[in-house]
Parts: sequence; C-alpha cells; structure tokens
Amino acid sequence: MRVGADNIRLYIKITIAKKLHIVYNCCMRLKGDSQMKIKVGIIGATGYAGAELVRLLKQRDDIEIVSLGSRSYAGTPFSNEYGALRGYEDDECAGEDMLEMSKTVDVIFTATPQGFYASQLSEEILSSCKVIDLSADFRITDVNIYEEWYKIHHPCPEFIKEAVYGLPEINREKIKNARLIANPGCYPTCSFLSIYPLLKAGYIDPDTIIIDAKSGTSGAGRGAKTANLFCEVNESIKAYSVAAHRHVPEIEEQLSNVAGRDIRISFTPHLVPMLRGILVTAYASLTKPVTPEELHAAYEACYKDEYFVRALPYGTPPETRWVRGSNLADVSCKLDARTNRVIMMGAIDNMVKGAAGQAIQNMNLMFGLPETTGITQLPL
Amino acid sequence: MRVGADNIRLYIKITIAKKLHIVYNCCMRLKGDSQMKIKVGIIGATGYAGAELVRLLKQRDDIEIVSLGSRSYAGTPFSNEYGALRGYEDDECAGEDMLEMSKTVDVIFTATPQGFYASQLSEEILSSCKVIDLSADFRITDVNIYEEWYKIHHPCPEFIKEAVYGLPEINREKIKNARLIANPGCYPTCSFLSIYPLLKAGYIDPDTIIIDAKSGTSGAGRGAKTANLFCEVNESIKAYSVAAHRHVPEIEEQLSNVAGRDIRISFTPHLVPMLRGILVTAYASLTKPVTPEELHAAYEACYKDEYFVRALPYGTPPETRWVRGSNLADVSCKLDARTNRVIMMGAIDNMVKGAAGQAIQNMNLMFGLPETTGITQLPL
Amino acid sequence: MRVGADNIRLYIKITIAKKLHIVYNCCMRLKGDSQMKIKVGIIGATGYAGAELVRLLKQRDDIEIVSLGSRSYAGTPFSNEYGALRGYEDDECAGEDMLEMSKTVDVIFTATPQGFYASQLSEEILSSCKVIDLSADFRITDVNIYEEWYKIHHPCPEFIKEAVYGLPEINREKIKNARLIANPGCYPTCSFLSIYPLLKAGYIDPDTIIIDAKSGTSGAGRGAKTANLFCEVNESIKAYSVAAHRHVPEIEEQLSNVAGRDIRISFTPHLVPMLRGILVTAYASLTKPVTPEELHAAYEACYKDEYFVRALPYGTPPETRWVRGSNLADVSCKLDARTNRVIMMGAIDNMVKGAAGQAIQNMNLMFGLPETTGITQLPL
Amino acid sequence: MRVGADNIRLYIKITIAKKLHIVYNCCMRLKGDSQMKIKVGIIGATGYAGAELVRLLKQRDDIEIVSLGSRSYAGTPFSNEYGALRGYEDDECAGEDMLEMSKTVDVIFTATPQGFYASQLSEEILSSCKVIDLSADFRITDVNIYEEWYKIHHPCPEFIKEAVYGLPEINREKIKNARLIANPGCYPTCSFLSIYPLLKAGYIDPDTIIIDAKSGTSGAGRGAKTANLFCEVNESIKAYSVAAHRHVPEIEEQLSNVAGRDIRISFTPHLVPMLRGILVTAYASLTKPVTPEELHAAYEACYKDEYFVRALPYGTPPETRWVRGSNLADVSCKLDARTNRVIMMGAIDNMVKGAAGQAIQNMNLMFGLPETTGITQLPL
Repeated sequence: MRVGADNIRLYIKITIAKKLHIVYNCCMRLKGDSQMKIKVGIIGATGYAGAELVRLLKQRDDIEIVSLGSRSYAGTPFSNEYGALRGYEDDECAGEDMLEMSKTVDVIFTATPQGFYASQLSEEILSSCKVIDLSADFRITDVNIYEEWYKIHHPCPEFIKEAVYGLPEINREKIKNARLIANPGCYPTCSFLSIYPLLKAGYIDPDTIIIDAKSGTSGAGRGAKTANLFCEVNESIKAYSVAAHRHVPEIEEQLSNVAGRDIRISFTPHLVPMLRGILVTAYASLTKPVTPEELHAAYEACYKDEYFVRALPYGTPPETRWVRGSNLADVSCKLDARTNRVIMMGAIDNMVKGAAGQAIQNMNLMFGLPETTGITQLPL
Repeated sequence: MRVGADNIRLYIKITIAKKLHIVYNCCMRLKGDSQMKIKVGIIGATGYAGAELVRLLKQRDDIEIVSLGSRSYAGTPFSNEYGALRGYEDDECAGEDMLEMSKTVDVIFTATPQGFYASQLSEEILSSCKVIDLSADFRITDVNIYEEWYKIHHPCPEFIKEAVYGLPEINREKIKNARLIANPGCYPTCSFLSIYPLLKAGYIDPDTIIIDAKSGTSGAGRGAKTANLFCEVNESIKAYSVAAHRHVPEIEEQLSNVAGRDIRISFTPHLVPMLRGILVTAYASLTKPVTPEELHAAYEACYKDEYFVRALPYGTPPETRWVRGSNLADVSCKLDARTNRVIMMGAIDNMVKGAAGQAIQNMNLMFGLPETTGITQLPL
Repeated sequence: MRVGADNIRLYIKITIAKKLHIVYNCCMRLKGDSQMKIKVGIIGATGYAGAELVRLLKQRDDIEIVSLGSRSYAGTPFSNEYGALRGYEDDECAGEDMLEMSKTVDVIFTATPQGFYASQLSEEILSSCKVIDLSADFRITDVNIYEEWYKIHHPCPEFIKEAVYGLPEINREKIKNARLIANPGCYPTCSFLSIYPLLKAGYIDPDTIIIDAKSGTSGAGRGAKTANLFCEVNESIKAYSVAAHRHVPEIEEQLSNVAGRDIRISFTPHLVPMLRGILVTAYASLTKPVTPEELHAAYEACYKDEYFVRALPYGTPPETRWVRGSNLADVSCKLDARTNRVIMMGAIDNMVKGAAGQAIQNMNLMFGLPETTGITQLPL
Repeated sequence: MRVGADNIRLYIKITIAKKLHIVYNCCMRLKGDSQMKIKVGIIGATGYAGAELVRLLKQRDDIEIVSLGSRSYAGTPFSNEYGALRGYEDDECAGEDMLEMSKTVDVIFTATPQGFYASQLSEEILSSCKVIDLSADFRITDVNIYEEWYKIHHPCPEFIKEAVYGLPEINREKIKNARLIANPGCYPTCSFLSIYPLLKAGYIDPDTIIIDAKSGTSGAGRGAKTANLFCEVNESIKAYSVAAHRHVPEIEEQLSNVAGRDIRISFTPHLVPMLRGILVTAYASLTKPVTPEELHAAYEACYKDEYFVRALPYGTPPETRWVRGSNLADVSCKLDARTNRVIMMGAIDNMVKGAAGQAIQNMNLMFGLPETTGITQLPL
C-alpha cells in the first residue's frame, strides 16, 4: 500500500524514467554497441570529482572513456590511485592537453581548479566537442564579480555568455542545446534547490536569507594539505571562509534571477567529519502569513516532475545519509511561527548531485538521452 | 615571545589561577586529607554526563565520591560500564534515593532526565546538602513556559525561584551562596557565551538573532535507541527538533535578561558524527556601523578576566577539537558587511563546559574553592 | 593501455558479464515486463541485511518485491525507517508469517537471527518457493556442533542435509538446483576466499591457520543495544568473542572440506569504527618453499574466472574502501620468509558479498539468470 | 564496595602514587617555584608526538618549556598550529639547532623522523643535558640491523651502546641513571607489554608468536600526504608494511631478551579510522597445559606494582577508548584450548604510553621525580 500523494508522485516519476531507460537501452543494444558509444574525456580525473565521474560512467554500456587527464598522475594506471576501479579502469592517465583531447572525444568533463581549464579553452575545442566544466569559471555572468571573489584574471571571458548554468531543474531546455556547461557548485546546488520554491512563490523576503551549510570533507579536494588530514578533521567541526566563501556570488546570482532583483545573502560553510554530503539549513522571514500546507505545496509545485528532487513531507529534516551515493536532492521546510521565519533544508551528495552526477545529468540532456541514464543508483 | 595583547591577558589569567591552586592545595594537604574532602553523590552516574563527573572528580585529591546512583546499573561496579575507570572507581552503583543520599554527602549532582529528580526534591534535602541539577527542571523561571516546552508537570515549582542559573560568567556571586543550582544546558551555554558580548554592547538587533547549532552525539545520551546507533549516526548530518527544541526558552530567557526585554530567537540544532563538542554559528543584524575592532573589543570586555572563555582573534572560527575534553569556551565573530550582519561563533565540549565541567565550576564556587580547581585540563 | 595479465583477465570477465546482461535484459524486455518478474519476499526487511536486499533489488527491472516482513515495524511504511528508499519502497511492512508469504512469492530471503526462521520452515513452504536463509541455521552440517556453538535447539534439523552452502565460488552447480540456500556468514565468506587458494594448493599447514578479522559496525545489526551506540563504538577498536565466535565452526567446516580432513583454526573478530567492510588477515606456516609467483598463481588459478573475486597483485594489501558497496572480494597474500609463514588477506563489504549481495548472487543462479545481474555496482 | 583482588591492587597503587605526589608538590612549592623548574626543549614540537609533549608538560607546575623546535613552523606561534594551546603556549617555534638548545635546557625531547636528530648528537650535548629520543635511532642494539631495516646510514653509532631502552616496566633502574633514552616505539610498547608476562613465565613457544596490530591514524604523523587525508582513511581499514614494518627488529630484540635467545615474530600493522590508540592481538602456542588462572597470574606477577599497566580480568578484551588520552596500558589474555594457543591482547594510546607520556615517564625517572608526575590523567 502506497502512502501519501507525494510518494505516489515520486513513484510515477520513477516508473516513467524506468520505461524510458528500457526503450533507450534496447534500441541502443539492438543497433550494436560500439558505434553508439559516446566518447568521453575527463580532465582532472584523479581528483575526487573526476574519479566520481569515472565510477559512474564505467557502469554504463553507452559510454567509452577515451582519455583520463591528470597532471599529478600522468603515466600511472588510474586504478593505482583508485583501487575500487581495478579491473575496470586500468588505463594510464594522460596529460591534460585539452585541444588534443577534443579531437578524439564527444565531450570533455573538466574537474580542475578554477582558472586552469579556462586558460586552454578555444573556439576550436568547442567546435569539435561539448564541454562540461565543473570549475567555477563560467558560472558567474559578470566577469568582474568572478575576478573579485576568485582573485584571478579570467583567461577567456568571451565564452561566459555562451555558457549555460547546468542546473537542469531550472535550465533544462537551454542545456539541451549548449556547447559549454558551467556545472553548478555543490553548495549552490543544494542551497538553490532548498530555497527556490519559497522564493519563487513570494513567501520569503529575499533580503533576509541566511544559509548555514555543512559539507563532508571530500568537498575540500584531494590535495595533500595538512588541514585535510584525518587527524585534523575527524572529531571536530568548524566554520570556514566565514562571510567570504566563493560560492556566495554564484548563489546570489541564481537566487536574484528568481527574485527578479539583486539580492544579497549571508552564507557560512562548515567542515563536517564525514566523507560525502552537503546539508543546507536556510533561514528567511516570511512576507505574509502562510500555512505549512502552502509551504509544502510550493515545493511540490516546483519538484513534482523532477526525478532527482524529493520534496519530503512537511517538516521532515533531510539527512545526508539518505542521499549518499545518489544523484538525489532531498528538500523540505518548517515554519517557525514564533519568529515569523521559515527554515528551509536540503541534502545532497556533494560528489554526485553536487558535482559528477549533475554533470552526467547535463551530458544526458546534451546528447538527447533520457536524463536519468546511469545516475539512478539508490542511496547507499 | 608572546604574541598579541589578547594572549597576554589569557596568560595572566592562567598564571593567577595556578598560584591560587598552589595555595589551596598546600593548605589542604598540610591540614591533612580526609577531614577536608568534599563528599559527593551523583545521581545518574552511568549516563554520559554523570560519568564525566566521575572522571573529573576522581582526579582530585579534595573530593570523595560517596555514592554513585544509577537506576539501570544499581549493583553493578561502575567500572564494568566505564572501563576507563577500572582501578579508580570500582564501587558498585547504588539506587537513586536522594533523601538517603543527602544525609551522607555535602553535594549532590543530578544528571538525570528532566522531571525525574525534581519529583524527589524537598526542603529536607536542601537543608542537609547542596544540589547541582544538570537537568532542565530549574532553568526556566516561568513554570508555565517550562511545562509547555517540556510537556510534563513540574513536581516542585516552589524551588524554581530559589535556584540559581549556574553560568558563572554572569552569575558568579549568586552561585557562591546558592543551595540549588540549575546547571545550564549545553546549547544554551555555548549560544549565550557567543552572543552575550555583542548583545550587551547593543551592537545587534535582538529580534534578528538566529542560532544554528551543531552537536556531537554524546549530547543524545546513553539510552539504547536505534537512532543513536553508530550505523545511524556515522557519515551523516541532519537537523532535528527544528523550531521546537526545548533549549529555546532557556536561551531566550538568558538573552532577554541581557537585552532588557523579551526576545525571541530561531534555533536549529544538528547532529554531527563526532563524540563531543558543540559549535554555535549565530547570525544577527547590526544596529549601527561597527568596526571589527569594536566587535572584538566587546568580547574582550566581557571575557578578559574569565579563565574559561577565550576570545579568539577577530574572525578566527572556533573548532570543537581545540576545546575537546576541556572546560574552555572559544568564541569569536566576523562582520558580514555586505549584508549588515555579524556572525557570532562559539565552541565548547558539551560534556565539560556544557555539563559536568560547568557543574564542577559551580561546585567550586559554592564551596569557596578556587573556581578552576580540577577543571584546568588542556584540550586533548 | 592495459597493465598486467591479471587486470586483463579481470577486464575480460567484466566484458563477458556485460554481454550476458545485454542479452538477458533485451530478451526480458522484449517479452514484456510483468509476467517475467521474479516475486520476492523478505523476512527481517528492516534489519541492515534486509534493507540492503531491498536497496539492491529495487534497482532491478526483473524483480518485484511482494512482501516486506518485519516484526518490529509491521504496519510502518518501509521508507519511514530507510529514508533512502522514499519514493522507491513506501509499502508498509508486513508481519513474518512465512507460510503465507510462500504462497505469493517465488523466493523468500530470511534475514533474521538464528533459530527464528528455522522454526517456521516446512516442506509445504519449500514446495512452493525457494528459500535463501541469511541466518546460520543451515550452514553447519553437524547439528550437534550447531547447537553447541549457538546454544539453541535446532527446530528443523531434517532440512540441514538438503541445504546448499551458498558460496558460488565453490558450490555454483549445486546452488543452481537448490531449494534451500544457507547463505554464508560475512566472516566465513571473507576468511574462506582469502585462504582457499593456498590451502587447496597444499602450500600451507592447515593446523597453523590463524584468522584475525576486523568488521565494520553494521555487522552488529540494528538492535538498539548500548554497546552499538555511536558514542561506544567511535574512536575505538576492540576484539570480541575471543576464541568463541560462532563463525568458527562454519569456517572450519568449509576449510576442512578443502583440506580433506578436520582442521581447527584460531579466529578473533574485532569491531572497527566504520559502517561497512570486513578485513581478514590470516596467518599460516608454509609446508614447503614457495615463491611469491607461485603463491600469486594459486590465487589466479582459483579466481581467474570469478567475476566477483579480484586477486590483487602479489603483496598488495586489500582495503575495505575499495570494495565498499560492491559485491567484490579483494584478496592477496604476502610471504614472510623470515618466519616461514604467509599472510593471506581479504576484504569484502559485509553487507553485500558478506550478506545481501551474495544472497542475490545465489538467487540469480537458482533462477537461471546471469550470475552478476543487479550486483555489478562499482565500489563507492 | 571494592570488587576483586586485582582491582584492590590497582587501587593501592593509585593511592600510593597520589601520596607521593602530594609530598613532592608541597616540597617543591614551599621552596619556591622558579629555581625548581626543569627546563625542557622539544625538537619536532609541531608534529603529533611533539605537540602531545607540549600538552602534557604545560599542565605541570614544575616544568618550563624553554624552546620549541620546528623545522616547518619556525617563527610561527605554536598556538597557530595547535589552537588548543592558545593562551597556554603562544611562543614562536624556534629552529632545531640541538647544540644551542642544549645550553639552555635540562632535557631535550627529540620527536623527529629517524636519522635526523642522531646526525646532530654529540658528547658536548650529552654533557650538558639529558636527551630523550622518540625516534628509532637508538632502539636497536645492532647497528647493522638498524641500517638494514631503516635503509639509512646511522650517523653516530657510538652512542647506541650508552642509550637505555626507555620502557620503565623493565628498565626502570637503568633509566634513572641514563643520559640518553631510546624511547620505545608505539607498536613495540604495546606488543611487549601484552606478551611479556607469558613469555617470561615460559608458557608460550617463542617461535610461534604472531602479532596483529591496529593503530589510529595519528601514528602516521602530521606530514601532508594524500594517503593520510580524511577521505582516504575514513570508513576503511587496511594492513600495511606487511612482513616488513620497521618495528619488527625492535620487538624481536626486546622479546629475545626475555626469551634468552634470538626469536623471530610475524607482525602486521593495520590502519584504523580513529585518531588515537593501538590495539595488539597476539597469538602463540602453549608450551604446556595451563589454566586461565595461571595465565592471569603471570600478568599479575609482572604488573601488580606497575601504576600504568592494568592487567584486566582474565579474558576481558582491552578497548582503546578506555586508555585514550592516558598513559595506561590495558592487557589481558584468553586461552584457545581447542587449538592449544593463547591470545594476548593489549591497548595503549599511541600518543601517550606509545610516545609522549612514556617519554615523560622516563624524564620523571631521570630527574628523581615520582614516576607518575603529570601523567595520571584518566582516559577521556
């Protein structure tokens, strides 16, 4: 016996997605494998986001990973660094020449620090393959704001305008036709999906939005820094980059688009002793009296047809474990009537919906595949 | 070479405290041990807060633990449950008859759930020994508010008025003469110490205070609940009791006392996969333009003579690991000029400054001992 | 470029498995979904092993979970307990009447404590559906040994003889025709796969085998016991059931089968502060001089055609993280020439290859499906 | 009520130690502070072992830390790296010139990698201060064995003979008069204390000793290596340096001394996702029939007067959490009668009894202080 209308909607979404897969898979397979495969190159393949791309893509029959670029581990078999992939991806890592790579692949994922990849981008590359950039280089429309927050010179601002912000839940159609995707940041994805419904519904005052976010340690990357050692991270929690984190302008730009005017938020990220997961707890004052039912309905209105976003029953706090390893985002809210505020909450896996999974979701859209292909794993 | 005026002040505080200890210890020891010892009874000794009391008190020469009360483990040697104390505290746990216990001890610590201990309290007990209550029963002045939030009938409201809220940093003198201490909650202690200086200085608008708190799992107690199993807690983070946590009225009452009028706050606690520690990240709007120096000076003004509160350099985020196992509270703040807000931060060990350590600090004051006796352990 | 013969073999195994899947899936789908689906019942569905079965089976198109039995949560929607499955498995849990369940399903998985399920088993049940028992009730051939180690009366010893020990790597053909599978224990699976090749090759003295095993905490189950609370498990390691663990006779029986005579082992399990994973470090004296190459060749000889067992390069220690969430077993060994011993090592995910994954592997064999169907997820 | 003879002995040990402290402290304090203080220099102060020395020594009234040497952080205030010590140790770190340091201190602790400190050691230094070396440079009597296992040239083998192996439980008298202490390794300390009683009693066959050890991650040091990142260590366990760990010859030398002949052991260390703690599980065959009582009596015979070693009740497995943060070692054993073996177990905090605490224990002995001064903290 099913329980509740929300769950029924989720069930229908899931069922439809499954049918699409069946059709897609059977067509593809009957045609014969090899000529159908999408050829993929990954730059920054040995970082955590890059390796997550490898993990997810290697489980698909319709993808061929042609090139694994890694500055630090060029010449080393990939599975030496990621023993999980032993037997599955033992190819040696290549260097990171994007132009060369673009000649042999259909799509390049760049999972490198900001500024690195943009310095190589060219019309020649974009003419021969699609690019999904997991760095921040093309997420901010205003290059001045980018340069102010990231403290670097943008090497190719001419491509910013063309880039599509790769959040399928709001930009699905644009993504389908894009050559260059700015894959959203982990904090912005979770923050936006949590706040979007109530902001769109006009229930909250945009000037009162405060986002308190918590992230697992994989978000800090695989660089060998003392601050990310097990003994420095475990059994502790701290805020960092207080009132100064680089994801602030990205969140503000996306929320401003919804609000219809420029808004400013407070944003505080925290480092949590766990591998994966982002939790967002956001606060805002209400613009008018609303009921719990109305609040929840706003979430349903936005996400009832979204496969990857689950609007939890009103007041149910999301937990990062329930989305771990999946491309799902769990969101909900709770009224704080005593203070005329609402608390908006969201949880994602920062490596999946916050990085590699969303990148693949974008790739699926760009190549005309069912959007959920290869990213329907249930949370572990 | 010392660095910075703040640290020098801390250094002086520490040095003075050490001298006081020397005098106290030598006096006591020259007089001879046994007749000087304070006789202690603990109710709820096998819970986490109770066991922390045992751990801290067993390291002192001037304390004798006379009775360890435990409903669940009466008749069991204490060290069977806490192997750490093997050889140090092998006495069998007793039952929890407070009246009987009161006849043989100088002070009783009650580390039991709300409502339990209060149902036994009587004038007879308070006449024969002091009581430090770690539950919430006497923290809220207005019994109606208590009963509304805790959903239980208060069994002895007549003692509420007499009870002193045991936060030494604001109630030191009252504590010295109290018979009955309401030992503060863990979240309220950390929240209050973080916000107090800026509220007192009039820099923040009391109606805009939002507290986002994160707690280690020991705060959930030692009850055998599925939700607190390792496999349910590890590798995840979630909010709980959103807009409904019982510590809300306690925090509001204390902050209202400072503000001089009734205020309401938003408060969201989170469960973090670590053993110990509370981190508070609090937000408020500024009432007027202030500089970082002024903000920091407000913290210094409040805490420069406080041994256990460290005002970190402006903008330095506290980390729970730096106070782990100690009675210290680290606090600091950061201006968010773009949004006219300030972020106030604090970290304590929930088991020490948030429970047992603060209770001992209160005991020290009540018995005329140097306030820091037995709780100067450095963080582990 | 591929590296090394071992990896090539793994690669071939994987490729063949993929092709089999394609054929199977297309056939099934072209025929039409519903009439093809295998109907499944799970008893003990809300325990960790049961929930892992649900997680894995819900990702398949060819399975229909008809009944979720749970003593503790009958009447509660499954996703209330496992938020990960919200939208995927919201059915209410049923009771645990096996006879009734047997009438509506093709196969029952029993993931309950020993003794519980066996008391319900009957010829009537086995005549109408297959049974895969994850408890220990049918793993030990000699009922006296079972009753001695498990301290319970076996309620239906008459079925022991019929039951097949469900380790596909050694019993594949028998499993295919079985009605009743005794799904192996987590420690026995990992211990056996680690030691089997060298014992079979006659390289090690069976009387010198010592197994030192380490398990994540999910192995302790979901019962609400104080000993399994986060605060009791985290930041600690301990041995337990020293020289007395119930998996001893199971390991001994399987190794004795290989040795051709009764052997006895020493076995010490340890509890590790992690969610999933078992690591086995086993020691034995050599019977004759052997080279590293010969040792490694023994592993290759046993596992070169096994999809789920990876013989790591000689001397490479397995790590539980590299098999987490997958049905893989990583094994290897290292010569300790100074002491004439060899150290044999293995890692599995105790919830997958050590429980639910292996159970599904058995189900696949019993129903004539490709053995790897639905359990090819790469490690997370 | 006390329980059991063992616990009574522990209690007496503790009581006697306390009385000695009182006498020592009062004497010292009545004489006046400053001229009595022992002046200490620490080389490698910002590593984990060095910082643990700082933490423990800063809580003492009779110690003055004169110089904190750190290659990586010279010129940086110590508390910048270890926020726990803010206000307690804000001095800037110095360089690591040992000769210069020796002129201003009474004792130097060297907590640096092997080979580093030995290259500076000279008669001039040893003439002006005592040296407690936490590296492995002086632990192995035979310089050839040292050079073979450590793969480095020993720069000053002439001092090896003079150095005393600083395990007070067996070398107490020699330590008192030593100028140069080779502070034992963490694994050797825990292994030796676990095995020593039964080897000394002649109950076990020295040729059958197998040690399976598990360590928290602080043992890997504070170097910024990818392998020690939180995301590489958490939620996993692995063996490392199998049959090749550098602590092997150290353990063998100490056990050989007890056995009266050269013996060889198998030793496998494992990395566990926790901060602190070493657990040893050791196996050996019995030389003759023994009872549990006899086995336990052997432990009691060795440790009944040892403050820091607790012989747990027969068969009780030690847990690292019960010694965390303390200088205690918990040991016990269990007979495996079926295989004629005994399992010996031990737990220490690798940072305390395995490094800094034991070094201070040695210092206390060298300076004629009560052995337990400053290291009686109870486990956290």
